[in-house]
Amino acid sequence: MKRKVCFVITSNIHYARNKLIIQELKNHPDIQLQLVLGASAILPMHGDVTDIMAKEGLPYDERIFMTLEGGNLVTMAKTTGLGIIEFTTVFDRLKPDVVVIRADRFEMLAAAVAAAYLNIPLAHIEGGDITGTIDESVRHAITKLSHIHFTTNEESRERVLRLGENPDYVFNFGSPELEFVAKNNFSVTNDLINYLGVGDTIDINKPYIIVMQHPVTTEVKDSRKQIDATLQAIKELNLPTIWFWPNVDAGTDEVSKGIRTFREYGHPHNIRFLKSLPAEQFIGLLKSSACLVGNSSAGIKEASLMGLPVVNIGTRQHGRRRGSNVIDVDHNKEQIKSAVLRQLEHGRYQPNNLYYQPGTAKNIVDKLASLKLYTQKHFHESR
Amino acid sequence: MKRKVCFVITSNIHYARNKLIIQELKNHPDIQLQLVLGASAILPMHGDVTDIMAKEGLPYDERIFMTLEGGNLVTMAKTTGLGIIEFTTVFDRLKPDVVVIRADRFEMLAAAVAAAYLNIPLAHIEGGDITGTIDESVRHAITKLSHIHFTTNEESRERVLRLGENPDYVFNFGSPELEFVAKNNFSVTNDLINYLGVGDTIDINKPYIIVMQHPVTTEVKDSRKQIDATLQAIKELNLPTIWFWPNVDAGTDEVSKGIRTFREYGHPHNIRFLKSLPAEQFIGLLKSSACLVGNSSAGIKEASLMGLPVVNIGTRQHGRRRGSNVIDVDHNKEQIKSAVLRQLEHGRYQPNNLYYQPGTAKNIVDKLASLKLYTQKHFHESR
Amino acid sequence: MKRKVCFVITSNIHYARNKLIIQELKNHPDIQLQLVLGASAILPMHGDVTDIMAKEGLPYDERIFMTLEGGNLVTMAKTTGLGIIEFTTVFDRLKPDVVVIRADRFEMLAAAVAAAYLNIPLAHIEGGDITGTIDESVRHAITKLSHIHFTTNEESRERVLRLGENPDYVFNFGSPELEFVAKNNFSVTNDLINYLGVGDTIDINKPYIIVMQHPVTTEVKDSRKQIDATLQAIKELNLPTIWFWPNVDAGTDEVSKGIRTFREYGHPHNIRFLKSLPAEQFIGLLKSSACLVGNSSAGIKEASLMGLPVVNIGTRQHGRRRGSNVIDVDHNKEQIKSAVLRQLEHGRYQPNNLYYQPGTAKNIVDKLASLKLYTQKHFHESR
Amino acid sequence: MKRKVCFVITSNIHYARNKLIIQELKNHPDIQLQLVLGASAILPMHGDVTDIMAKEGLPYDERIFMTLEGGNLVTMAKTTGLGIIEFTTVFDRLKPDVVVIRADRFEMLAAAVAAAYLNIPLAHIEGGDITGTIDESVRHAITKLSHIHFTTNEESRERVLRLGENPDYVFNFGSPELEFVAKNNFSVTNDLINYLGVGDTIDINKPYIIVMQHPVTTEVKDSRKQIDATLQAIKELNLPTIWFWPNVDAGTDEVSKGIRTFREYGHPHNIRFLKSLPAEQFIGLLKSSACLVGNSSAGIKEASLMGLPVVNIGTRQHGRRRGSNVIDVDHNKEQIKSAVLRQLEHGRYQPNNLYYQPGTAKNIVDKLASLKLYTQKHFHESR
Repeated sequence: MKRKVCFVITSNIHYARNKLIIQELKNHPDIQLQLVLGASAILPMHGDVTDIMAKEGLPYDERIFMTLEGGNLVTMAKTTGLGIIEFTTVFDRLKPDVVVIRADRFEMLAAAVAAAYLNIPLAHIEGGDITGTIDESVRHAITKLSHIHFTTNEESRERVLRLGENPDYVFNFGSPELEFVAKNNFSVTNDLINYLGVGDTIDINKPYIIVMQHPVTTEVKDSRKQIDATLQAIKELNLPTIWFWPNVDAGTDEVSKGIRTFREYGHPHNIRFLKSLPAEQFIGLLKSSACLVGNSSAGIKEASLMGLPVVNIGTRQHGRRRGSNVIDVDHNKEQIKSAVLRQLEHGRYQPNNLYYQPGTAKNIVDKLASLKLYTQKHFHESR
Repeated sequence: MKRKVCFVITSNIHYARNKLIIQELKNHPDIQLQLVLGASAILPMHGDVTDIMAKEGLPYDERIFMTLEGGNLVTMAKTTGLGIIEFTTVFDRLKPDVVVIRADRFEMLAAAVAAAYLNIPLAHIEGGDITGTIDESVRHAITKLSHIHFTTNEESRERVLRLGENPDYVFNFGSPELEFVAKNNFSVTNDLINYLGVGDTIDINKPYIIVMQHPVTTEVKDSRKQIDATLQAIKELNLPTIWFWPNVDAGTDEVSKGIRTFREYGHPHNIRFLKSLPAEQFIGLLKSSACLVGNSSAGIKEASLMGLPVVNIGTRQHGRRRGSNVIDVDHNKEQIKSAVLRQLEHGRYQPNNLYYQPGTAKNIVDKLASLKLYTQKHFHESR
Repeated sequence: MKRKVCFVITSNIHYARNKLIIQELKNHPDIQLQLVLGASAILPMHGDVTDIMAKEGLPYDERIFMTLEGGNLVTMAKTTGLGIIEFTTVFDRLKPDVVVIRADRFEMLAAAVAAAYLNIPLAHIEGGDITGTIDESVRHAITKLSHIHFTTNEESRERVLRLGENPDYVFNFGSPELEFVAKNNFSVTNDLINYLGVGDTIDINKPYIIVMQHPVTTEVKDSRKQIDATLQAIKELNLPTIWFWPNVDAGTDEVSKGIRTFREYGHPHNIRFLKSLPAEQFIGLLKSSACLVGNSSAGIKEASLMGLPVVNIGTRQHGRRRGSNVIDVDHNKEQIKSAVLRQLEHGRYQPNNLYYQPGTAKNIVDKLASLKLYTQKHFHESR
Repeated sequence: MKRKVCFVITSNIHYARNKLIIQELKNHPDIQLQLVLGASAILPMHGDVTDIMAKEGLPYDERIFMTLEGGNLVTMAKTTGLGIIEFTTVFDRLKPDVVVIRADRFEMLAAAVAAAYLNIPLAHIEGGDITGTIDESVRHAITKLSHIHFTTNEESRERVLRLGENPDYVFNFGSPELEFVAKNNFSVTNDLINYLGVGDTIDINKPYIIVMQHPVTTEVKDSRKQIDATLQAIKELNLPTIWFWPNVDAGTDEVSKGIRTFREYGHPHNIRFLKSLPAEQFIGLLKSSACLVGNSSAGIKEASLMGLPVVNIGTRQHGRRRGSNVIDVDHNKEQIKSAVLRQLEHGRYQPNNLYYQPGTAKNIVDKLASLKLYTQKHFHESR
């Protein structure tokens, strides 16, 4: 009988980053893939992946609407509570042999709790990293609920072991999204970019920057001030810019309001605002951009292998391993401006392999297919 | 302004074990105590503490009904999801400066997630222990969501540090329940014990044993077989016995059904069945008993300081530090019988101080009153 | 393509009363039956029907754990809220062409809201009756959410029409449980009754009375006093008695506590306490009893066709059509005693057909199979 | 002791329409007002009233985030389920003597169930109307859960009586929003309108039309087609237009997507898009407009007293009493265009008093202050 592997996706970028693994799972002869879509991955406002995945031969098994509107700490917490109720229903029905989750988003903890409480072995990709925001707590809490760990770098593997996990179940096969970057040959066209979104027309055959700035859940009161600093910096730079709307974390409404106000009253030029892009196009857009600005993990992960110049703002990626392509700045207009100018002057960096290994998806899926599964966790004391 | 410290209680034994801390919190001049009762702590079937606490001058600030009937893994998980929704409401209203939780029960994770997601500093008592069941995962996940740690023994303090917590916020002041044991002079009377519960009249002035056996969430399919082994052993021993009903963990219905069937068709003699006892009486009953049988943590914790002979059955307390007063056996009738007989023959052990320190409650509360609080967690790498 | 008819069952007595309809649905060539079990119908403490139904060839399609412990008004309301969330999941998955619900229990409103909001045509059995408690409000609210109505008597059909429902979709085919009574030849044995439950052994070959008294949700503060009056009356009558535990409505804990206290300290004789019985046995037990005491609707419905003497206590069945076999009394020990004695003296009444028609199940199912379904409701003004 | 009257508001237009009642409640010497805000009334995307109300001296007592993102039937139903859980918490805490709700929105049923199940007397404003969508079912279900009824017209009062309600508790004092219209002298300015929203600048000193078109929950699959017909009609009319975004009912995402696509690719001129306006400004804007187009109840209610020409599209207001100022059309571009042109040619109508009475707010509040309250409902048979 095939092993039932249930993969959980809760945002559109999350799909992009796990695409190779999901395809590998689908094609593996000993695995029956179960796909669960939830949270913002199925919300039109945040890039619904349902149709895209169906077209790519990946129809979902279950969908979970769980996101409470409000974009604040209360709705973030309650979304997670409702998520546990719903993931429990779904896992109890699908009865997977193993559930696979990824990273550190707040709602992913809901999937982790549901699986662990139902005695379903849980595999976690990208454990052991350190970051800012509530993600830092969420990620390690998920590690302590998980049975199998696929870290994306050696430092993180060490950290997961230190956390008491069994060395026989902790693997560093590199970062799945970097394998996707390495394999992806897509490029974007002016037509697509200027068909989507709103704002000025951008010619991506000339140098452009990308902005992705999400709220910081542990600094939620500063959300508006933080986005305003970036908006002003970008306005004054007056460079062709593709700006992505923020994710749904607490503070999102303040960030969005800042952007909307800016659009209406700031009379910005040279900026196009996008909600999301399909995975391949997004990587293509990153690859040909001159600089990535904001606090997205793409600036730490994807950018490392591209040698893409990055201006990383604030604490959201605090503590994560990064290459020399990243300049860290505060939420300060002048710092942001000057860092962007320095990066443009510098141009492309040498790619680094902090997070990249070939064969990531295949290695992960082979382990998922063959590892002996277990339920009761034991703290591994040997370190 | 006084610091608002919110203490969460989710079972009646949980109240007993934290009583000294709660009183200390109430009396501290710089602290405003907020009491939240939830889960089985307010259910009549499981020992509602509302009235007892009110009589002792500790009326609640908020009560949370969150327990789904069913006693299985699904209801355990969904109770936790609903718990997050409800704890979020409560914490958002009370706006505590710090939330204090305890131990490893599945529903406690709900309080932890709610507080952490709302950026409320979280203090955790009894982190770093290792045990069996889902509790093992829950406890460490809570540690990774918490900001302040009060472990109950030195080994656990070391483990919490290894988990990456900040040494300035990890303290070992000993186990609160052992301080309660040490200070408590209550004794129980035949009248009380035989007024409560159902079954035969027991003369507690003669040697008697106590049985407390809870379901093991990670072995839920074996629940009935496990309880039956103990029931048969106790029946064949035919000694005066006080038997406590199980807690609400997944598997509770099978355990309860085993006990009910036994009562109706096993024609047991010499056994009295109780739901719960007030804290002081429970300690009094333990102190004067000849042997504790089952898998309660009271056999590891309270019993250690009393030198009480314990027969610990199965994996539920797996890995926990224990004194020589504990004999571990499998879910096997003959093993249980023979271990009980050995313990009765041996009699009282020397008390040990594995978990005991004087001044536990006062030391914890002083820290809660004075520690500088913080929100954003950072992994402490120095170990 | 067969029409998908989804039948919802939320208590064990609810199953009994709808058994003939469910069998008819299962056997109809144009219908695909979908069975959803929820609320107390799947709780061991309240008579889990899962296994019984599976043995009778009726495995469930979906099960919903939704009952919050507490037995008070808050948990009753929140159970309903959670029920909407869960029924929505289930109906969205099963995609029935029509959902069939029954009667007036508080949690049934959850199924009604979920179906109506999903634009699924809703059929309601037993609309138009009037009663006491919150049931009175629930029943008519359900009527206003429903598209097809099967009342159990002519007065109720008139009332449903008056409520603005379309006459083409309102039918009186009689009460399904009375058809079940009429067709059922089962009788109970001393062995079964005395195998189940707890308490004294009862010889059902001699005259015995049955007590079924549930809490009244709109008089929840009087629950204990109300049950105590009945307990005292029964004790003083000192007749062989079969006593059923109450349902889960708000107040249930007080009622249960009254019964438990009575069992322990009232030293009752001649009473056996049962949780539930399978449908056939329950009807058999009713048929051969001398008198039914309490506030169950069985005293109004089933008893009418049996000519069974009934002492109906309090307001729970207020307003319902009843035959001369029913004596109404207050929650007053003396009134209850004297009414029981009068009923025993009188003995069996002539059966009446207030609620009975032959062919109920077949007629209902034929309509469910053939009626043209619709979604948008319109108030029918013609009356 | 003052009577505690709890008023529930779940949308910004809902606040506008009840403003006079709320002020009257606040000023009544025998009443303690409790304000509960929930659902879209506190969502920035849909016109958060929190700050506006606070500035007007009406700070809230409780706020409830309950709206699940998705804008489909599933999220509509689950929002209602979660709403019951949350309203139960809130009412259990506030312990009002009476809860007041309004109209027929799907989430309002949550407040009704919570209050009714907690035995709190429930007053309902605007019962007895008939409309399309799920609102038709919701409104009458709420009536059957309510204890006091304030209808807005005589026909509706008759209908509520026919539904079995007690004549002593059914009053027609007219429609509160029409009293607000009658008393309101506000006018809007070009500055305000063109400060808010997005799109072309509109000169409201010249003739302009207003469009308000919401999804129809029972025709959710046609949402996009329906909005597209209106969008095309308005485009071809090419008149100065103020367009309000739709409410959150199921289908809202399709409607919004239609509007957004239209904005980006339809290159509309002469249109300004608004999310919401404060109550006074909204009435001012209505008063000075040339025609209202869409399916808002404002076209039936507010417009009647203004003699405002209305083009009402589709079934959403089906069955409601309307004056001669309303032309009904299908979701058909040509019908819409030609009806708008006819209305512009006709100009203002004579105001009618279908829904208006003076003193509405005062009369309602006097009853709320003085009526004898009751809990147990009885079907009133006399009609």
